[in-house]
Amino acid sequence: MSLQEKTEWIAVDWGQTRQRVWVMGAGGNLLAERSADQGMERLTRDGFETTLLAMIEDFLSDARTTPVLCSGMVGSAEDWAEVPFQAVPCAPQSADSFVSARTGDARIAVTIVPGLSQTSPAPDLMRGEETKIAGFLQSSPKFDGVLVMPGTHSKWVHISAEEVVSFQTFLTGELYALLARQSVLRNAVAIGGWDDAAFESGVSEAISRPESVAAKLFSLQAESLLAQGTPEAARARLSGLLIGMELAATRPYWLGQNLTVLAAPDIGKIYARALSLQGLQAPVLDSAPLVREGLQTAYEALTAAKD
Amino acid sequence: MSLQEKTEWIAVDWGQTRQRVWVMGAGGNLLAERSADQGMERLTRDGFETTLLAMIEDFLSDARTTPVLCSGMVGSAEDWAEVPFQAVPCAPQSADSFVSARTGDARIAVTIVPGLSQTSPAPDLMRGEETKIAGFLQSSPKFDGVLVMPGTHSKWVHISAEEVVSFQTFLTGELYALLARQSVLRNAVAIGGWDDAAFESGVSEAISRPESVAAKLFSLQAESLLAQGTPEAARARLSGLLIGMELAATRPYWLGQNLTVLAAPDIGKIYARALSLQGLQAPVLDSAPLVREGLQTAYEALTAAKD
Repeated sequence: MSLQEKTEWIAVDWGQTRQRVWVMGAGGNLLAERSADQGMERLTRDGFETTLLAMIEDFLSDARTTPVLCSGMVGSAEDWAEVPFQAVPCAPQSADSFVSARTGDARIAVTIVPGLSQTSPAPDLMRGEETKIAGFLQSSPKFDGVLVMPGTHSKWVHISAEEVVSFQTFLTGELYALLARQSVLRNAVAIGGWDDAAFESGVSEAISRPESVAAKLFSLQAESLLAQGTPEAARARLSGLLIGMELAATRPYWLGQNLTVLAAPDIGKIYARALSLQGLQAPVLDSAPLVREGLQTAYEALTAAKD
Repeated sequence: MSLQEKTEWIAVDWGQTRQRVWVMGAGGNLLAERSADQGMERLTRDGFETTLLAMIEDFLSDARTTPVLCSGMVGSAEDWAEVPFQAVPCAPQSADSFVSARTGDARIAVTIVPGLSQTSPAPDLMRGEETKIAGFLQSSPKFDGVLVMPGTHSKWVHISAEEVVSFQTFLTGELYALLARQSVLRNAVAIGGWDDAAFESGVSEAISRPESVAAKLFSLQAESLLAQGTPEAARARLSGLLIGMELAATRPYWLGQNLTVLAAPDIGKIYARALSLQGLQAPVLDSAPLVREGLQTAYEALTAAKD
C-alpha cells in the first residue's frame, strides 16, 4: 500500500509560531511527522489552508477526503473558523464542540478542537493544553489531582472525574525569557549552566517572601557588577525566584494535593526540584507525545459521533 | 561677550542611550542646552570624546580649558576612565571621589561623578541618581526620610544627615515596558488612557497578596479576550499590580517614614496616588532640574577643592 493509501487521518499541533504534523494510519499507527515555522499573525483564511497543504500534500489521496484534526492557537484564527471556548468545568475535549474549518480543497476535512475558558475564580484561557490533558487522561483516566504544565505560560490544572475543574496560568516562562534576554539583567544571566544552591535559595526566598522578588531581580545585576556571583548562579537564581513566585501563588493548588508534572524533561526536573523543596514528590511525565495522543482521542470521539 | 567667553563649565547627564548637556555661565547661569541619542554600548575610548565634542564644540574656547562634569552611566565606561563606586553610607557626591577622564583635546577637562554601591542588606548600585539626590539636598539639606525615585529602575533611598544610608532598586518600569510592549499582554494593554479604579484595585491586591501578581498578569490577557475589560483599564491595572508589588517590598521604607517622590510629574502623580492608598501623603517634586542642580553642586565642590 502506498503512504497515501495508508493515511487514515492527520493530527496537527498548530501553535502561534510553529506547526507539528503527525500522519496517522489505522489503529493509531504513526506513519510520518512534519513540522513548519509559520507565524500565525499575518495568515489570512486562504493562508491557513495553503500552509497546511504544504505540510501534508504528499499524504493526501484524490480518491477520498482525509480528516485533519488541529488543536492549539489555530482556534483563534477567526478568519478560518469560529471556535468558541468551552467553559470549565468540562471534559478537556468533547466531539460536540469540535468545529469544521472552511477549506477549498476537497481532499481534506479540517476539524479544530476548541480551547477552554474560565470566568471564576479568575478569568483564564487555554488553547492546546486541553489536548495534552486529554492525552494524559487517556492513559490515566482515574487521575484526581493537579497537573502542573510548565512552559512559556505555565498552567496549573485541577482535574477530577475526567473533567477540568479549574486552572490558572502564569507568565513564568515568558517573564524569564524577557528578563534574561532583553532586560538590564541580560549581561548578568548566563545562557546555559546551573547552580543548585542558587536555584534553591531563590525558590525558598520567593515562597517565604514573594513581595521581595521585585527587589531581588536588580540584585542579580548588582551582584554581577560587584563580582559577587557567576552568570550561571544568576541564571539558576532568576529561575528559582520566578518559579518560587509561581509556587507561592499556587499554594492552594499543591498543598495536600496529588500532583503530576507534564513537561519537557529538563524543565520538568526543575519544577519537580522546586516542589520537592516544599516536601512534595511529583512524578514528571514527558509532555512530548501528549498532543498526538490527545488528538488520537479526539479523532476516535469524532469518528464515534459520526457513526 | 561671545557665548564661548561666557561659558564657565559644562554639565552632562550621560545615560545608556541619551545624553543631555547644559552650558553654564558664571553663578549657575544656564546659557544653552543640547541633547543627543548615542548608545553607549559600542563606544570606544575615542568615541566618548568625539560624542562629547560634537555636542559642545560650539561653546569651547581655544584660549582656555573648560571643565566638563559628567554623571550617569558614563561612569561604567572603563575604557575612558576607571570610576569606582562609592560605598554607602556616604554623601551622594564628594569631590575627592571624582575621576578625570582621558581626553586628547586640550580645550576640555572632563570629570566623572561616581555612582554609589551597597553590599548589605542587599547588593545594589546606582549611577546618576546620586547626582539628583545631591541636587535635591542642595535645596533641602535637612531632609531626613526616604526619597522615592520612580523610573525604568525605581530607587528607594534612605537619607539622613545629608548622607545616603541605604537604597533599593526595582525593575518596575522596565518590567512594565517588557510586559506591556513585548509579552503576550501587548494586545491587551493600551498605549495610553487610564482607569483609576483598575489602578487602585491592582495596587491593593498586590500589596495584600503580592504572590498573586504572578497569577493576575495572565488574567489581563484572558479578560481582554473574554471582552471583560478595556485596554485602558488593563494598562492601569498592570501599572497598579507592578507598583503594588514594589510597595509590598518597600514597606520598611515607607511605613512611618517621611517620604518625597522625585519624578517626572505624570509618573510622580501615579506613585503618590498608590502611596495615598496606604494613607501616606508624599509630596511630588519634578526631577527634571535635579541632575543639573546636582552637577552644579559637584562643580562648586570641585572648584573649592582646587582652591
